[in-house]
Amino acid sequence: MVPHLITALTGPINELEQRILDPMPAIERWFRLEWMEHTPPFYTSVDIRDAGFKLAAVGPRLSPGGCNNLPPEMLPLAVQAAMAAIEKICPEARNLLLIPENHTRNTFYLSNVAQLQRIFQMAGLNVRVGSINPEIKETTTIDLPNGDRVTLEPVIRGKRRLGLKDFDPCTILLNNDLSAGLPGILEDLHEQHVLPPLHAGWSVRRKSHHFDSYEEVSKRFGKLLGIDPWLINPMFGQCGEVDFAEGEGLECLRSNVDALLTKIRRKYKEYGIHEKPFVVVKADNGTYGMGIMTVRDVKDLDALNRKTRNKMSVIKDGQAVSDVIIQEGVLTNERINDAVAEPVVYMMDRYVVGGFYRVHAERGIDENLNAPGASFVPLAFEQSAHTPQPGMKAGSSAPNRFYMYGVIGRLAMLAASYELETTDPDAEIYD
Amino acid sequence: MVPHLITALTGPINELEQRILDPMPAIERWFRLEWMEHTPPFYTSVDIRDAGFKLAAVGPRLSPGGCNNLPPEMLPLAVQAAMAAIEKICPEARNLLLIPENHTRNTFYLSNVAQLQRIFQMAGLNVRVGSINPEIKETTTIDLPNGDRVTLEPVIRGKRRLGLKDFDPCTILLNNDLSAGLPGILEDLHEQHVLPPLHAGWSVRRKSHHFDSYEEVSKRFGKLLGIDPWLINPMFGQCGEVDFAEGEGLECLRSNVDALLTKIRRKYKEYGIHEKPFVVVKADNGTYGMGIMTVRDVKDLDALNRKTRNKMSVIKDGQAVSDVIIQEGVLTNERINDAVAEPVVYMMDRYVVGGFYRVHAERGIDENLNAPGASFVPLAFEQSAHTPQPGMKAGSSAPNRFYMYGVIGRLAMLAASYELETTDPDAEIYD
Repeated sequence: MVPHLITALTGPINELEQRILDPMPAIERWFRLEWMEHTPPFYTSVDIRDAGFKLAAVGPRLSPGGCNNLPPEMLPLAVQAAMAAIEKICPEARNLLLIPENHTRNTFYLSNVAQLQRIFQMAGLNVRVGSINPEIKETTTIDLPNGDRVTLEPVIRGKRRLGLKDFDPCTILLNNDLSAGLPGILEDLHEQHVLPPLHAGWSVRRKSHHFDSYEEVSKRFGKLLGIDPWLINPMFGQCGEVDFAEGEGLECLRSNVDALLTKIRRKYKEYGIHEKPFVVVKADNGTYGMGIMTVRDVKDLDALNRKTRNKMSVIKDGQAVSDVIIQEGVLTNERINDAVAEPVVYMMDRYVVGGFYRVHAERGIDENLNAPGASFVPLAFEQSAHTPQPGMKAGSSAPNRFYMYGVIGRLAMLAASYELETTDPDAEIYD
Repeated sequence: MVPHLITALTGPINELEQRILDPMPAIERWFRLEWMEHTPPFYTSVDIRDAGFKLAAVGPRLSPGGCNNLPPEMLPLAVQAAMAAIEKICPEARNLLLIPENHTRNTFYLSNVAQLQRIFQMAGLNVRVGSINPEIKETTTIDLPNGDRVTLEPVIRGKRRLGLKDFDPCTILLNNDLSAGLPGILEDLHEQHVLPPLHAGWSVRRKSHHFDSYEEVSKRFGKLLGIDPWLINPMFGQCGEVDFAEGEGLECLRSNVDALLTKIRRKYKEYGIHEKPFVVVKADNGTYGMGIMTVRDVKDLDALNRKTRNKMSVIKDGQAVSDVIIQEGVLTNERINDAVAEPVVYMMDRYVVGGFYRVHAERGIDENLNAPGASFVPLAFEQSAHTPQPGMKAGSSAPNRFYMYGVIGRLAMLAASYELETTDPDAEIYD
C-alpha cells in the first residue's frame, strides 16, 4: 500500500491502471517476498512519467534531495519508516552523521538537509551535519527562508572513523551522490555503517546498469500481472566514447536513435497509439537533470548547435560525458494549472512515504522537467477513500492513481537493489 | 517518535513531561533495544491518565476496538505499521481471516471491524471476516451508518485449520478478547498463524499479571531517566475470593484499600500534592470498563448498595468476578469542552499510529470514562512543529505532549510483551 494522495490526473482510471489496482494484494505479497531476498536502498526518490498507455520510472536517486517538498502530514510516515530502517540496520545506533552535498549556498537543498535531520531526530537519533566541503573550515550556521536552520560542521577523519568535534557517530548517512568522484575521506570506514553504501554514489553508478536491472524487474513483474513489460519499461540502447564537444562517436548515437525510434513506432502501431515517438539521450553517469536531450528525429542529431553540444558534454561537478544511453521517451500526461507535471515518489526503506509534483510551465510533455524553473507541489492526502461509494465492496476504498505510482516507484527501487548487489565490490560469490 | 498530534491540554509542558521529552533519542534507542529482545504485541490500544504530576497507562487491550475513531490522516501510518508487522511474522501471507467479537448488532464496534479490514487490505492481504458467533449461520452483510459495510461469514473448522467457504487463510487475526472463555473452535490450529496468540485473550490474561510486568518495565525505564518509577506506575494490591453479591471476602478488600490509600497519602506528601487520594477496584479479569469502582475512603466499602454490588459481581459475557485488584487512582486533567477526557493511544506492531480522546461529560476526573455515554474525539496532526520557533535549535521541533503519551503507551505495550512471555503455554524453558 502507498498513501492515498490527491493526484492531478482526474479522468477515469484507464486499463493499465486497473490492471495494477485489481491485483493489489498479489502485488504487495510479491514485494514482500522480493524484500525477503533483496535489501531495499536506505532511501530513494523516483520520478514517474505517466503517458496513460504506458508508465516509466525515470531512475531512482539513492541520495534524494527535495524531501522538504513533502507535505508536513507525511512526516510521521517518513519517521516511522526511518525507525524501521534503523531498527533493521543498526538498532544500537545513538549518533548519526549526515553528509550533505557540497553546495552550501543553495537554500532549497539545505531545507532538504534540515528536513532529513528532523526525520532522523524524530526517529530517535542524535543527528549532526558534517560537511566534506573543504571550504567549511568551522561550524557554519545557515538560516533558511522557511525558518529552519542548518549547522554545518567540518568533518574530522581519524584513522578508522569519521566524525565531528565531540561527536563520534556509529552511522554515516550520505545525502551526497558522489558525482564528483569518491572522496578519500569516506573510504575505509569499516567500523561505521555508511548508508547508502559508497557504490550507490555516481562515482560507480551507471544508468545503463540500472536499466538492465529494471528490465529484469519489469519482466518478472509483467509475468505476475500477465502484461507486456513494455507497458512499464522504456526500451534503451547505449553508446561509449561519444564526444559531443568534438562531434566524435555520433555515428553510434545516430544508429541507436534510429533503431530505437523504429522499435517504438512498431510498438505504438501494435497498441494503436497515435503519438510521435521520441527518445531521450542521457549521460550514462549523469544526475541532476544535466546531460539530457530529447530527440524526435535522427536528423535532429545532425543539427546539434554549439549550445546543446556544450550542454551535453559536461554534467554535474564538471564530469565529462563519454558514455550515453538512448532511452525510449515516455510522455507525461499529468498537468497542474496547464503546466506539465511529473509525480516524484519518495521511499524510505521499503515504504512509500509520500510524493510531490515537479511542475515546469515552460517544458513540453516530452521533455525533462528536472531543470531550472521547475517548481514543486506537495501531494496532499486524499480523503475520499473514506466517504461512502455507491456499490462499493465491503472494506474496499476508492481507486487511487497514486497507488500505481507507488508501485512503479518501488519497482525502480527494487531494480536499484538488484543493481547495488551487482556492483557491490564486497559481494561474496557463492558459485 | 510518535505522531505529533494536537492534545487538549495546552498549558506549558510540566517538569515530568520535560523529563520525558529531553532524552528522546535515548528513550527511542531504549525501545529499539527492548524490541530486539521482546516481541511487540500485534496491535494494542492503551488508555492514558494524565494527572500532571503523574501519568498512568490504564492497561493495554491486545484486541483493540475503536480504531474507527482514528482520523483518516492516520490510515497510512496504520497501514505502514501493519505491513511491517506482516513482513516480520508471515511475509508469505495471502489470506487473512479476521475474527471479531460476537456482538453483531453494535454498529460502532462493526465500524472498527470495517476499518481493520481496510487497513489489512491496504497492507496487501485478502481479508474476510469470519464470525464464531453460533447465531451467524450464513453470510450476513451489515450496512453501517458511515457508509461502510461488513460481511460476516460463518467460520468452518476443519481438523487442523479454520477458514470460510472457499477461503483458506494462513493467518487468523483475533479482534475478540475471548473474555467468554476460549472457544474450542480456535484451539489446536498449529498450521495457521493466530494473532495475537490465544493466551493474549482474557480467558488467560489477568490485570495483576500485567501490572506486575508494568512495574518491572517502569522500574527499568525510571532508571534510564533517573526518575522515581512511581511517577509513571500506579501502585496496586490484589485479593482473591471476593464475592460482591454475597458480601464475602470484603475484609481483604478493606485492608488493601486502607493500606493503599495510606501509601498514596505518603507519596502525595513527599511530592507536595494537594489532591485527595483514591483507589480503583477492578475485576482482575475484567474488560470493557466493566467491574470497576472508585473508592475514596475505606468506609465507602461498608456502604456498598445493591446496585454497585451487582455491577461489580458480573462482567462482560456474564463472567463472575472473584479476584480483584486494588489500584492507585490517577486523575485525568485533560478536558475537552469542560468534559473529562483521557487520551487513547493506538499502536500497531511497535509503532504508535495515532490516538483519540475518550470524553465523558458525566464523569469526574477520578472516574473510569470507559462507560456508556462516552464519545470520541480524533486527535488531528499538529502542524505547529513546522513553523519557525524563536530560539529553536536546528532541526528540533516544538515540544509535543502527545510524545509522552506515546512513550507511556509503549511502556504498557512492552509490559504486555513481558506478560505474554510469562504466560506463554508453549514457552521453552532454557534454565
